[in-house]
Amino acid sequence: MTRWRLTIEFDGGPFMGWQRQDHGPSVQQALEEALLRMTGERAAMHAAGRTDAGVHALAMTAHADVAKPLTEHRLREGLNALIRPAPVSVTAVSQVADDWHARFSCVGRRYLYRILNRRPPPALNRGKVWHVPVPLDADAMAEGAAHLVGRHDFTTFRSVHCQSQSPLKTLDSLKVERVGEEIHFRAAARSFLHHQVRSMVGTLVQVGNGRWGPEDVKSALVAKDRQALGLNAPPEGLYFVEAIYP
Amino acid sequence: MTRWRLTIEFDGGPFMGWQRQDHGPSVQQALEEALLRMTGERAAMHAAGRTDAGVHALAMTAHADVAKPLTEHRLREGLNALIRPAPVSVTAVSQVADDWHARFSCVGRRYLYRILNRRPPPALNRGKVWHVPVPLDADAMAEGAAHLVGRHDFTTFRSVHCQSQSPLKTLDSLKVERVGEEIHFRAAARSFLHHQVRSMVGTLVQVGNGRWGPEDVKSALVAKDRQALGLNAPPEGLYFVEAIYP
Repeated sequence: MTRWRLTIEFDGGPFMGWQRQDHGPSVQQALEEALLRMTGERAAMHAAGRTDAGVHALAMTAHADVAKPLTEHRLREGLNALIRPAPVSVTAVSQVADDWHARFSCVGRRYLYRILNRRPPPALNRGKVWHVPVPLDADAMAEGAAHLVGRHDFTTFRSVHCQSQSPLKTLDSLKVERVGEEIHFRAAARSFLHHQVRSMVGTLVQVGNGRWGPEDVKSALVAKDRQALGLNAPPEGLYFVEAIYP
Repeated sequence: MTRWRLTIEFDGGPFMGWQRQDHGPSVQQALEEALLRMTGERAAMHAAGRTDAGVHALAMTAHADVAKPLTEHRLREGLNALIRPAPVSVTAVSQVADDWHARFSCVGRRYLYRILNRRPPPALNRGKVWHVPVPLDADAMAEGAAHLVGRHDFTTFRSVHCQSQSPLKTLDSLKVERVGEEIHFRAAARSFLHHQVRSMVGTLVQVGNGRWGPEDVKSALVAKDRQALGLNAPPEGLYFVEAIYP
């Protein structure tokens, strides 16, 4: 039995998210079925993180145990051939130790959130950005974001469905930058609460459009109350960028 | 009657190209029908250039004459509301003189061609790049491209359906650059022959994969013969970037 580490790019648009669901297609199911057709084995794919419906990945990391002897080349090529036409691409594979785990060995996760900040709607990047037509002040949002960096109780920015044992998390960085017509948010932490990035971005947009001051982000954080939250940013602007391992 | 200049972003995927066709949807038809619903007028949209099926535009320029009094804001917002769900966005509008013409006043056109140069297929940019899985030498392609810059008879790089009176064109620049996993070609000229950019890119890929030397591009150009050509690059990697006016 070999444990394989996989790096996976996917367009979240047609999926209910990473994890297998009864009510619709998932990235996990697409990969597991491709692996089954290739090897005859019902191996489980474990990912560094779950993603919500519509959320994309530039480089998700997952692992699976496979008995059939395979080379890196054959596994990657076989999965990519069999997973079509699902918009999922295995960009790298490698053998790892039997106790290596995509989720539990992961020591850092990075996300990107893209807003298209212009009046006209997106044509080329539809489904790949959140369209916010009112002008946003990126500097004010960066000032608000700074209040969130560090170790905090992120109850305000947590989904009611969050399964994390504790709302205490350390946000290592949260950068806000204007890139042409877009605004990019880059978040890094060991781990995130469910909906944390989308909650933070939604709240910062309230700062960007002037309804909130940057310091109101701190008040919302301290309140530890979902009611203190701005709106959640929609999933289509969110990208899982990278999982980091020792 | 007011002549309006429009800047248009579109995803070429679902279209037969810019120009109206009997056998399928076109960007021109989508825009003309939105304008008709908005104004009751059957105004023709004239573009800086035609594009083939599947070719995208970051900023196509077009014009149309409209009798109904409109503000810039109302025209842009109205078209964007009525053109949905087609992936077309009017990003800017302005009034121009009655003798201003999107095609005939245009003094420069710029194109971008994107290749995804990695073994795994695209997931997030499917339909937005040409996937070339074999490694390409960008420096050799840049050397080959240099032979094409200047005033030449581009018969070799011309579609049999090209309607241009002369195959003589001046290519102002053709830059080849590696950008992460992609290779970008940027071409600028007053005007191009039909399929010229896709022919040049297809030929340069023969240089990039080592089948041709950079100097073979010059031989192909001098031959003035379509048979001397490498393959045509597919439409999905091509973007009309900008039309330039005095």
